[in-house]
Amino acid sequence: VLRGDITAALRRALIEELAAVGYGRMSVEAVARRAGVAKTAVYRRWGSKPEMVLAIVAEVAERKLSLPDAGSLRADVQVVLRIMAQALEHPLAAQIIPDLLAEAGRDPKIAEALQVALRTAQDEVGGRLIRRAIARGELRADANPELAVDLVVGPVYWRLAVSRRPLPPDQVGALADAVVAALVAGAPA
Amino acid sequence: VLRGDITAALRRALIEELAAVGYGRMSVEAVARRAGVAKTAVYRRWGSKPEMVLAIVAEVAERKLSLPDAGSLRADVQVVLRIMAQALEHPLAAQIIPDLLAEAGRDPKIAEALQVALRTAQDEVGGRLIRRAIARGELRADANPELAVDLVVGPVYWRLAVSRRPLPPDQVGALADAVVAALVAGAPA
Repeated sequence: VLRGDITAALRRALIEELAAVGYGRMSVEAVARRAGVAKTAVYRRWGSKPEMVLAIVAEVAERKLSLPDAGSLRADVQVVLRIMAQALEHPLAAQIIPDLLAEAGRDPKIAEALQVALRTAQDEVGGRLIRRAIARGELRADANPELAVDLVVGPVYWRLAVSRRPLPPDQVGALADAVVAALVAGAPA
Repeated sequence: VLRGDITAALRRALIEELAAVGYGRMSVEAVARRAGVAKTAVYRRWGSKPEMVLAIVAEVAERKLSLPDAGSLRADVQVVLRIMAQALEHPLAAQIIPDLLAEAGRDPKIAEALQVALRTAQDEVGGRLIRRAIARGELRADANPELAVDLVVGPVYWRLAVSRRPLPPDQVGALADAVVAALVAGAPA
């Protein structure tokens, strides 16, 4: 078996184990067992349980949203809402995200890794989407990108990850209309 | 020491312990130790660790928001945003909520208790706030209360509980304006 295959198997095992038992109860032993390798294979790659988890979080941070220009603020918002819905409806994400958020309150290293991951995602959304809308004349140049991210990402996150109600595909349009109205009210063109 | 005092001490100890170590690592022993009582005092009140946690979640659910009529949709939204900001900026809430959300994915009883708590909160917001706005002629009678809750609660939850950036008091007004615009776009009067 190649070295890279073992690393990939360990990453998958970590994500599954994290979703199954949570960060607090997760052990390096159980991850190794799930991957079908010895514990030493973990410690050869990562020094400890937190280091292992941080490496996965950093990976997620690097998977940037490409967000091609969809032509209008409303179309761009719909793309973000669909990407978020797809990600948040994945059962692994639904379990791991709150777990790491809880852990962030107790472990400054986890908190920092999560902040980097979130900042990356927010720069994508707030940066691209808002700057494009300003360039198109849909929003004013002084639009607050932080507030914009909260307005785009917050409702879909609340619905799917907290309240855990589905977002029917035929409601994405209505949500996009509402979000665009909110963005325009926050910074009219 | 009175029986009720011990119960109150145990409730406080449970919340503190939950915030400190998380649901997964929390033990009944540690809660009892923190409260300065014997473990049997816990089992006399609650049968198990999950039962104890569920009892606290149910309590939170019963603490309904009173939400007196503030006179307009915008003013009502501001009140909700301020209440949520106050609750979410509390360090205990910031740690316990994601922890229980993570646990809900693994334990159907926790999931159900959380759903009851959230449904109560959402009925408060979606129900009162939206029905009042319809009565005032600010929103159309077919306003979607589910979408409305997502739009009011989502951005402030994302900002404070996920992204963990503060919401400066002078930005509550701008956020309220944006949320009202979103609500009106979702269901114009």
